Amino acid sequence: MAISRANVPFARLDFARKARTGFGETVFGPGKTPEQLASIFAAFAEKRLPVLATRVTPEQAEAVLAAGLKAKYHPVGRLLIAVGEKPRAGNKRFHPVLKGTVAVLTGGTADIPVAEECAGTIEFFGGRAARYFDVGVAGLHRLLNVIDKVRKADVVVAVAGMEGALPSVVSGLVSAPVVAVPTSVGYGAGAGGVAAALAMLNSCAEGVSVVNIDNGFGAAVVACRMLRRLKA
Amino acid sequence: MAISRANVPFARLDFARKARTGFGETVFGPGKTPEQLASIFAAFAEKRLPVLATRVTPEQAEAVLAAGLKAKYHPVGRLLIAVGEKPRAGNKRFHPVLKGTVAVLTGGTADIPVAEECAGTIEFFGGRAARYFDVGVAGLHRLLNVIDKVRKADVVVAVAGMEGALPSVVSGLVSAPVVAVPTSVGYGAGAGGVAAALAMLNSCAEGVSVVNIDNGFGAAVVACRMLRRLKA
Amino acid sequence: MAISRANVPFARLDFARKARTGFGETVFGPGKTPEQLASIFAAFAEKRLPVLATRVTPEQAEAVLAAGLKAKYHPVGRLLIAVGEKPRAGNKRFHPVLKGTVAVLTGGTADIPVAEECAGTIEFFGGRAARYFDVGVAGLHRLLNVIDKVRKADVVVAVAGMEGALPSVVSGLVSAPVVAVPTSVGYGAGAGGVAAALAMLNSCAEGVSVVNIDNGFGAAVVACRMLRRLKA
Amino acid sequence: MAISRANVPFARLDFARKARTGFGETVFGPGKTPEQLASIFAAFAEKRLPVLATRVTPEQAEAVLAAGLKAKYHPVGRLLIAVGEKPRAGNKRFHPVLKGTVAVLTGGTADIPVAEECAGTIEFFGGRAARYFDVGVAGLHRLLNVIDKVRKADVVVAVAGMEGALPSVVSGLVSAPVVAVPTSVGYGAGAGGVAAALAMLNSCAEGVSVVNIDNGFGAAVVACRMLRRLKA
Amino acid sequence: MAISRANVPFARLDFARKARTGFGETVFGPGKTPEQLASIFAAFAEKRLPVLATRVTPEQAEAVLAAGLKAKYHPVGRLLIAVGEKPRAGNKRFHPVLKGTVAVLTGGTADIPVAEECAGTIEFFGGRAARYFDVGVAGLHRLLNVIDKVRKADVVVAVAGMEGALPSVVSGLVSAPVVAVPTSVGYGAGAGGVAAALAMLNSCAEGVSVVNIDNGFGAAVVACRMLRRLKA
Amino acid sequence: MAISRANVPFARLDFARKARTGFGETVFGPGKTPEQLASIFAAFAEKRLPVLATRVTPEQAEAVLAAGLKAKYHPVGRLLIAVGEKPRAGNKRFHPVLKGTVAVLTGGTADIPVAEECAGTIEFFGGRAARYFDVGVAGLHRLLNVIDKVRKADVVVAVAGMEGALPSVVSGLVSAPVVAVPTSVGYGAGAGGVAAALAMLNSCAEGVSVVNIDNGFGAAVVACRMLRRLKA
Amino acid sequence: MAISRANVPFARLDFARKARTGFGETVFGPGKTPEQLASIFAAFAEKRLPVLATRVTPEQAEAVLAAGLKAKYHPVGRLLIAVGEKPRAGNKRFHPVLKGTVAVLTGGTADIPVAEECAGTIEFFGGRAARYFDVGVAGLHRLLNVIDKVRKADVVVAVAGMEGALPSVVSGLVSAPVVAVPTSVGYGAGAGGVAAALAMLNSCAEGVSVVNIDNGFGAAVVACRMLRRLKA
Amino acid sequence: MAISRANVPFARLDFARKARTGFGETVFGPGKTPEQLASIFAAFAEKRLPVLATRVTPEQAEAVLAAGLKAKYHPVGRLLIAVGEKPRAGNKRFHPVLKGTVAVLTGGTADIPVAEECAGTIEFFGGRAARYFDVGVAGLHRLLNVIDKVRKADVVVAVAGMEGALPSVVSGLVSAPVVAVPTSVGYGAGAGGVAAALAMLNSCAEGVSVVNIDNGFGAAVVACRMLRRLKA
Repeated sequence: MAISRANVPFARLDFARKARTGFGETVFGPGKTPEQLASIFAAFAEKRLPVLATRVTPEQAEAVLAAGLKAKYHPVGRLLIAVGEKPRAGNKRFHPVLKGTVAVLTGGTADIPVAEECAGTIEFFGGRAARYFDVGVAGLHRLLNVIDKVRKADVVVAVAGMEGALPSVVSGLVSAPVVAVPTSVGYGAGAGGVAAALAMLNSCAEGVSVVNIDNGFGAAVVACRMLRRLKA
Repeated sequence: MAISRANVPFARLDFARKARTGFGETVFGPGKTPEQLASIFAAFAEKRLPVLATRVTPEQAEAVLAAGLKAKYHPVGRLLIAVGEKPRAGNKRFHPVLKGTVAVLTGGTADIPVAEECAGTIEFFGGRAARYFDVGVAGLHRLLNVIDKVRKADVVVAVAGMEGALPSVVSGLVSAPVVAVPTSVGYGAGAGGVAAALAMLNSCAEGVSVVNIDNGFGAAVVACRMLRRLKA
Repeated sequence: MAISRANVPFARLDFARKARTGFGETVFGPGKTPEQLASIFAAFAEKRLPVLATRVTPEQAEAVLAAGLKAKYHPVGRLLIAVGEKPRAGNKRFHPVLKGTVAVLTGGTADIPVAEECAGTIEFFGGRAARYFDVGVAGLHRLLNVIDKVRKADVVVAVAGMEGALPSVVSGLVSAPVVAVPTSVGYGAGAGGVAAALAMLNSCAEGVSVVNIDNGFGAAVVACRMLRRLKA
Repeated sequence: MAISRANVPFARLDFARKARTGFGETVFGPGKTPEQLASIFAAFAEKRLPVLATRVTPEQAEAVLAAGLKAKYHPVGRLLIAVGEKPRAGNKRFHPVLKGTVAVLTGGTADIPVAEECAGTIEFFGGRAARYFDVGVAGLHRLLNVIDKVRKADVVVAVAGMEGALPSVVSGLVSAPVVAVPTSVGYGAGAGGVAAALAMLNSCAEGVSVVNIDNGFGAAVVACRMLRRLKA
Repeated sequence: MAISRANVPFARLDFARKARTGFGETVFGPGKTPEQLASIFAAFAEKRLPVLATRVTPEQAEAVLAAGLKAKYHPVGRLLIAVGEKPRAGNKRFHPVLKGTVAVLTGGTADIPVAEECAGTIEFFGGRAARYFDVGVAGLHRLLNVIDKVRKADVVVAVAGMEGALPSVVSGLVSAPVVAVPTSVGYGAGAGGVAAALAMLNSCAEGVSVVNIDNGFGAAVVACRMLRRLKA
Repeated sequence: MAISRANVPFARLDFARKARTGFGETVFGPGKTPEQLASIFAAFAEKRLPVLATRVTPEQAEAVLAAGLKAKYHPVGRLLIAVGEKPRAGNKRFHPVLKGTVAVLTGGTADIPVAEECAGTIEFFGGRAARYFDVGVAGLHRLLNVIDKVRKADVVVAVAGMEGALPSVVSGLVSAPVVAVPTSVGYGAGAGGVAAALAMLNSCAEGVSVVNIDNGFGAAVVACRMLRRLKA
Repeated sequence: MAISRANVPFARLDFARKARTGFGETVFGPGKTPEQLASIFAAFAEKRLPVLATRVTPEQAEAVLAAGLKAKYHPVGRLLIAVGEKPRAGNKRFHPVLKGTVAVLTGGTADIPVAEECAGTIEFFGGRAARYFDVGVAGLHRLLNVIDKVRKADVVVAVAGMEGALPSVVSGLVSAPVVAVPTSVGYGAGAGGVAAALAMLNSCAEGVSVVNIDNGFGAAVVACRMLRRLKA
Repeated sequence: MAISRANVPFARLDFARKARTGFGETVFGPGKTPEQLASIFAAFAEKRLPVLATRVTPEQAEAVLAAGLKAKYHPVGRLLIAVGEKPRAGNKRFHPVLKGTVAVLTGGTADIPVAEECAGTIEFFGGRAARYFDVGVAGLHRLLNVIDKVRKADVVVAVAGMEGALPSVVSGLVSAPVVAVPTSVGYGAGAGGVAAALAMLNSCAEGVSVVNIDNGFGAAVVACRMLRRLKA
């Protein structure tokens, strides 16, 4: 049975999204049953379109793969990606390769899932992500060891929880724009990422802008919108 | 008497800043006496360097101009700018002209001072700012009337107070990165820009990152860091 | 055994409520055991009165239906509705048909349960609800596609989470009063609906009033109180 | 010299607003110099259009009147109103008389300025406002003394600060929709209207929706949008 | 085996508490294993002393009773009470009967567990509690029906969640002191009892003081300290 | 000219208040012009009734006294008191002398104005206030020096800012009910009395209830309602 | 198979940490699988280094012990400690014995897990911890009974939830620095430790500094850094 | 006329404070009239005792000096210090010289007043303060330039506003305890020092404890309590 729009009544899939905004449709995993996610992936497969789902649980991923759909699950970043079927001869790649590089940094190891959500999304959209994890400010030598490489990136995404100091320190050391991602890592006063988010908005360093707590995907889209301009 | 570092003990002026981060030193006006601001401008004038001061009151500006220093005051954006003396023959412009354009939008007229702080800063750093003011979402026709021009910008800065919905609506209509600036315009619950800041961090539209409340200067630096990459 | 007031000691059922306020009694499901909810429905059945329960879990609904009571469960809106036995000849309908229409909009698909709670409640009280779901501001074309129909409604209920911008945009496009319902959809800073609620209270658009987070039922009552005046 | 759009560069006046939304343009006073407000009133006078300004200080009002413009200042409600020149023969009244009545209640005497902003705005838009002030819940006899009259209104606006209980109590006694206006009256914990606003959003009584703190104007627009439907 | 202080190392039991403060020791149930609670009750039994435990789960209560200790579990108020063995001839009652009455009111049925915690504690300490439940302000007739009886109480405890208006309304109708207990009943903005607590602290009615959210026990102690003075 | 109700249109004076609630009318000073306050005092003088105004500025007090009205200003507690003319022969005192004593404690000297508002109000209502100021917990010897006297009071009012620990410590040392008054003394995190108010609501000591920040008047009414019961 | 850095890819273990900061590496348990924790302990065992893990669940501890690794689990303080193999002849103890003593106090029994995390960490780093538990301010005699011993300590750690008054009272009685640890013990307003943390930051007593809520480990490191200076 | 305790009724001066806690009495300037401050300084002068007043305005200082009292005003740190008259022969210095050094760092120049309050207080109590100002993390080279000197201090006080990252970065580079002082420098979200305070409490670096916002005095006392132990 062909899967069509009518079979996915719980979501308005936007197959024409790339035409409007330059990037294909993506799906937010939470709140969808494994079956619903499988239906969505089937609908995109039918149209030979790529699709990215975020915050996907192993159970959800298994349901999609068990339905015989081609997709790859990235458990750390909780991404499920279907790259789309090969375009026919003469067709261009769905998401053309983006110029430039995004450096994705984390303060600690607990921030890695958010950073992988970001890096994986960048790669899905055709960008290049260079990972520099666990380089938080409490052990400054870790950041200084990699800073020369980070300086070569066109955009820096700095992911950090707790006191959220990483973007401030990094932004003073590079000339690229820094997208700060507060994470919900931490506890006590300011838990849930509030302390980190406030700190990043109050950064004493210039060149920092902030996305929502744990929103690695959002940082990736901001970064890719920047990269896309490099082609112009 | 020559003005030197020792004469400005209340601030560490960073004359070599551009060498490190690509943009010249700037000064935050609040908390400085008119005399202190005049001393700072004199120190830069002595070195023939440009300098930008933000949040400058008319009294502060008057003190600088009364000291015979060359500077221009922009009262709406509260900027005081000294462009620096002409570089000697063969020298390059201090802030080379940046490629591309930044569209600066505001929701209402009360947001204009923050937007002018942003636009004036962009221009100080060599960028081009296209202003689209009073295009808030409560009268959608205003935004739709200019959206085709906004789409041509390489970066969009969306400045809005109250419910802060402008960046979400704009980001769904353009493909450039959107830097959202919440303003303290509004009152009651969520006053001081809190409602707008939270709304922008929670934007349902992709491609939005946020700077601190009323931080037009910060948005300008983020935008110019992006523009600078266009040269690469 | 007849079920009487004395058999439902955990709640003061108000069988005369409609005489006072125009609408029949309703029940808030959370905190009640399935058996308690069944007892309540039995008490109303005994009096041939209609009753609406909100936030009803499938387990609660099953208990009521298993007790042989006539009721219909709406799983998306989590409503359990007993329409009451047919009034005897000459009697009027319990909730007379209300004039006018309420347009119920949602920003995203995740807001639909709250919107269905609202729409189903409107219908229980004799009103007409026109549903326009997933028309959030990040993809403005979706709203513009339906706005002409929305303009014909006598009341608009706008349900949205995250940045809660939908009521502001809608209210600028219609002349009916807009009841805004923030939802707890979203995460991070301002999660739990706080960002949406603050944004809606700070709406730059005139004509918006707000109910509590996720309170689709409350918006329905406000809307129906408006509709009822249309008969005067 | 004719006053034209070009002479009021600090604000986009919307002379065609009524055509779109049914009510004429209004102006928010704060942040405007007395001269700017006079210019705005002159621009409307030139077009023989009515205009309402809110939160107007005595100094602002004096500047408008000193410029020879016809307007009436209501100091308690801080409204400045120009009713517009008489329309020519055959022309309809700018804001046609609205059917029905809005009851405007306050908890205490300190809430009266917000209530007068609301009542005066209702009257500007052609509605009828019945005032019931100082009927707060701490002395219940005051409310019970007037409740029979309040019950006859088509909309109730309940204005209260401190614990904000008035809308809950009123809504249980009437069948009309209740628009709750929290005020910043009070001090200590929950000061600035936060306690009242939260209480109103959490009202245990059905039929209550809420506008921003001190937003008497906003409540008036919501009420008038309801009244306008009564004509249909 | 005799139970002694050394056997209850996880808590410092204060057997001499009544000598100091007039009321016997009480125990906060949460965080204690069923076995620990049984040990505590055994320690008091050994000394023939009464003891009250609050927030006791059915599992905890069962463990105490299964250990053969004399105690009575009140499931609604979640109290476990051992009244102590009969004092020897000539001894006075441990908690002498207090003069006067405490009226315990609730706004809704969901507030009853907190009110029962309060009423049961009052009775444990020798006081008299008169219960008036589900008399919230949204249906004012319920309160007015019982207010004459409430007026006879020496202290009024008013328990309410959501907007927490009950103490304000009651305090205007009685001359006794009113102890307000906010409950965590409600959801959305101000959930967890925050809206109710703020409202109660901001009560426009005189004579109201407030205890912590859901703290029925605390209100009981305040009330009994008042009652005890009636003997002087 | 006789002053009558019609001459005080800005306030509903309640001359019959004592008949209903046992205590005479009181007036909240802020927001009233000196002339308005004088009119209010004149209206009470005309009826030979006592009246108490709180939060009265020296300017307000001067206006009342300059109008020839008999009143006494207490500048520390910011109270203005008119005791009323002598009742005619056979008439009872307006506020009969209350039995018992209220101990009023402060943590520091900065809390004294709030404590004097409380003590002066108690005395106005016929009660006896024993003052123990500057006995905060940081220097415990100060409290221990006076605790034996405090123990004799029938009610304890504990006034404290900053961390608000005084009521907890005191309540563990006395058997009377403790009314806690948080003050806005302090700065930084939790400023404005928020830290103190939260601490008092979370008191680990039993027998504490809380009024609003800086609400010395409110604590006095609670205390006097308790004292009045001592007569029964 | 030897365990090496490459086998623990989820964490950057810092075996050289002591050389830099004086104390060995520690591990935060939450978010790590039992297997991951076992790998980490194996990596340290291979290098004969001691390691401390905090917030360790019984399941995690069991996994480490089941892997045959030498470690001791402290269930109350939730610490898992491997003291490291005996250094070879001539080698010094890894963490040399620190001079001085840290007094660790708690307000209640529910604060003990946080206090044990603190005391156990101090002992791991070579310090001496003297425990004084359940000495909260509601029963002041408990604190006064032990204060002479507490005065002999070189640092005092005061652990308390609810209103967090303990550090204020203690700091006024001792001359050593007081490290305050707010705990999440409590409920209602200010729950999760917020009230305690705010109170401690606002302490009216001098000599108090504060760590994050429930951060017994952090207080231990601060205390040990102080103790280490005693050797100088 | 001799000044005695009776002449300073507005404050309980504690002349014996040093005997109890090791440091002399200090005075909080705000809320005291210039005359009151002069009286306090006179009372200490009479007893030949030193005294320190914090947050002293120029007007207050002038009043003390104009009264002929020996004191020195430090305008940046807003301290007024009377060192006390020379002790008689054989007497020891009031505050004996403390061993060790406190490094006092600031992030920016706007933090200097708080840092000078701290450094001046340390010096008053006999300690040595080494100042390292304007070494914030946005320009890391500034901190790295001085870190070798900072490492030699026995205690580090890190003063910073905005995102408050300085203590985290410093604590990872030194082995001494770090006392973090958030300042109210900054604006927008998290203004007033809230963002900095939360960040410091959530520091990912070990060894950091926090005092209240802008509380340079408090940090000094904590540091001096540590230094005093170095003598033991």
